[in-house]
Amino acid sequence: MEIKIMKNILDRNQNKADEVRSLMSTSNVLMVNIISSPGAGKTTLLERTCEELGSKFRIGVIEGDITTDRDARRLKKFDIPIVVINTEGGCHLDSHSISKVLDLFDLDALDFLFVENVGNLICPSQFDLGETFKLAVVSTTEGDDKPAKYPMLFREAKAVLLNKIDLIPYTNFNLENFRSDLRHINAGVPIFETSFTRGDGLESWFKWITRQVTALR
Amino acid sequence: MEIKIMKNILDRNQNKADEVRSLMSTSNVLMVNIISSPGAGKTTLLERTCEELGSKFRIGVIEGDITTDRDARRLKKFDIPIVVINTEGGCHLDSHSISKVLDLFDLDALDFLFVENVGNLICPSQFDLGETFKLAVVSTTEGDDKPAKYPMLFREAKAVLLNKIDLIPYTNFNLENFRSDLRHINAGVPIFETSFTRGDGLESWFKWITRQVTALR
Repeated sequence: MEIKIMKNILDRNQNKADEVRSLMSTSNVLMVNIISSPGAGKTTLLERTCEELGSKFRIGVIEGDITTDRDARRLKKFDIPIVVINTEGGCHLDSHSISKVLDLFDLDALDFLFVENVGNLICPSQFDLGETFKLAVVSTTEGDDKPAKYPMLFREAKAVLLNKIDLIPYTNFNLENFRSDLRHINAGVPIFETSFTRGDGLESWFKWITRQVTALR
Repeated sequence: MEIKIMKNILDRNQNKADEVRSLMSTSNVLMVNIISSPGAGKTTLLERTCEELGSKFRIGVIEGDITTDRDARRLKKFDIPIVVINTEGGCHLDSHSISKVLDLFDLDALDFLFVENVGNLICPSQFDLGETFKLAVVSTTEGDDKPAKYPMLFREAKAVLLNKIDLIPYTNFNLENFRSDLRHINAGVPIFETSFTRGDGLESWFKWITRQVTALR
């Protein structure tokens, strides 16, 4: 019974996701579904990316948050369209909530649509939003065992951003174990090893994401 | 439709949780439902607690994990009963999965039953397992805004353990903001500020949890 309902929910989500994906494709918008645990660095990634690429590309953001608009307020300093979706306790965004707010964007005037999902390493990976691809963000302070313990997201992600590498000396994080587990789950997935405070790895990320968006043209 | 189903699921969960709670009460077992984001320190808390209290109290552990038994293996060095529940993708434990494994414990031979829930700051807080109380674990590297952004768990928790305080100097974590947000959500909740690597805060935690279990007698 519960399984059937879950299947119905996922089917309805998939149909709407296909609509969203087709809309993005028609408008040449690269839609990135950013997924991580709470506090891994999703919003800071968006801040750095807007700073660097905001003058070269037209960026829009959807902020998924349970109850506040704190993340959106951090992005207010950039002159970009931002829409907040409050899930009111819900643990993930779905394609219907995305579809409902797309009218608030002028898609033809966008290159990127970044979606910051709710902070959760599990549920968001099960709901296709119609994104071009999923980006997994994970921080070293969460431990090197995260890909093995939460494989769904890491299997689906087109790229993995490993953040807070400046904190490795203060933890028992083992980079080789992390990379090796990840290779077992998703061989060949690009890994960006970043520190947003020190700036490590950001150049590679900017180059890579720029290549993704220019490939759409 | 989906709301009605969710209500049914939660009602059935609640009935079973009431059964579990009554069983714990009859057997004088303190059952603690430990909830946090991935990598905040739940398993290490159990390691430290078993080291310190394992000779004074009889401890049992249920390990909730999506797919591996890695956390359980970390606890194998202690001579205690451990049961792993793999949720196979599920984002939380529920009272039915707990109830099914309780037969594997001799409850009359236990003082504590610690349940390490799946690493997720959202969904586990919505499912009563029949626990005596919920313990929220959160780490400084996740940021000081977590109580405000994920209020459900922090509202329900009987105590909050703020871990990795040794890493505060390397982050922009603001302890006053954290405490003040938390007080708004759950005034008077005890906060244990810990570093499992340095040992800070553990004495207070051991004393407090010992008081909780002796109060049952």
